[in-house]
Amino acid sequence: MNNTRSIDQDVLEQIIREVFEKMNTTQASPRTEPSKDNDFTIDPQRIPVGISVRHVHICKEDIEKLFGPGAELHPERTLYQGDFAANETVSLIGPKMRLLERVRILGPMRDRTQVELAKTDTIFLGVDAPLRMSGDLKDSAPITIIGPKGVVELKEGCIRAMRHIHMNTKEAKYFGLKDGELVKVRVGGPSAVTFDNVVVRVSDNVRLQIHLDTDEGNVADINCKREIEIIKD
Amino acid sequence: MNNTRSIDQDVLEQIIREVFEKMNTTQASPRTEPSKDNDFTIDPQRIPVGISVRHVHICKEDIEKLFGPGAELHPERTLYQGDFAANETVSLIGPKMRLLERVRILGPMRDRTQVELAKTDTIFLGVDAPLRMSGDLKDSAPITIIGPKGVVELKEGCIRAMRHIHMNTKEAKYFGLKDGELVKVRVGGPSAVTFDNVVVRVSDNVRLQIHLDTDEGNVADINCKREIEIIKD
Repeated sequence: MNNTRSIDQDVLEQIIREVFEKMNTTQASPRTEPSKDNDFTIDPQRIPVGISVRHVHICKEDIEKLFGPGAELHPERTLYQGDFAANETVSLIGPKMRLLERVRILGPMRDRTQVELAKTDTIFLGVDAPLRMSGDLKDSAPITIIGPKGVVELKEGCIRAMRHIHMNTKEAKYFGLKDGELVKVRVGGPSAVTFDNVVVRVSDNVRLQIHLDTDEGNVADINCKREIEIIKD
Repeated sequence: MNNTRSIDQDVLEQIIREVFEKMNTTQASPRTEPSKDNDFTIDPQRIPVGISVRHVHICKEDIEKLFGPGAELHPERTLYQGDFAANETVSLIGPKMRLLERVRILGPMRDRTQVELAKTDTIFLGVDAPLRMSGDLKDSAPITIIGPKGVVELKEGCIRAMRHIHMNTKEAKYFGLKDGELVKVRVGGPSAVTFDNVVVRVSDNVRLQIHLDTDEGNVADINCKREIEIIKD
């Protein structure tokens, strides 16, 4: 067994991605397309769930540092909200000098580079990433991103994403919720969990969906069909 | 960077253990020794928490298969409930033929070998471990245990441990709870979570303590002081 005493991080990452992609697909398949005006159907006890695996959003300047001048993202797979998982992946390094490999970049490109990790990832890397909404990067954690053509040392930009619910204006009205409001989300079953402090994010061009990270997905045991319920305080 | 593209599992395991040992220590230190008759102090909103990292309980027959004839466990560290973490570790293999290394054995020895994993571990190994109370192993998952001197192929014995609360008779009476009853446990803070279906385990010679696994600890963000509250339905 001595020849197999180190586990390749590529293999590990691939497994995790496959499992969670399958989970996302399972959850998304019975969706009711609630954002279409002519087909407004919501079952408040069965909200679609997306599990976010650790990922990076990238700006034009940084993608060129990491992948070379003129580099672009190449979509591999369209995601539930219309953005995409890119073919391009990077590695991450924190103060413990341990490498987290094959971290997927999500596109399209943004104005600013941002790294989103689960708590388990932050422990592994030794990064003290704060719990934040996407885009709220002031005084967030520094992290180093490794690409095939170069390195980006972010002074700040690494966060743990706060769990949140995307909904459009019509859906928000249906639930009686406002943008920025905090609700609870309950996942049933033997591992039943209620997550407090789930942020409501109201905007157009989104589909109703609860976003959890991999730690939250694992604890709630969301790989089979579960009732996912929004609870207002 | 090519020389560091695979992460050594020993290092990973060591980090995780260090972090969680620190977490356990932090949580356990302000304890009030509630099981002593002359010092019966319980704050129901501040119950001590122990985070169980993946581990193995082992029987005499299997320790000899894994470590050689006459092998014994050597205590490395006494745990909160009086049992111990042994010096001895094993590796685990599931149907995906991926190796989870340096999994700690907890002593003393038991009548039957049992492997307790978090959901994240079961995804990595590809083991379909059911959610069970310790000792309830009928039709639980098969798993292969690797030791320096041999291999044990368990036909059943691998579980995900149901979260539970240890308490003695006096504490159970204080809370109005019975052995086997299910309660909710709430962890406050920005990542506030309520765990349903936490099993009350009443017995003598235990100290009041909530047992969560690493996935649950990470989601609840229990590495700083948090109020841990029992909620009766």
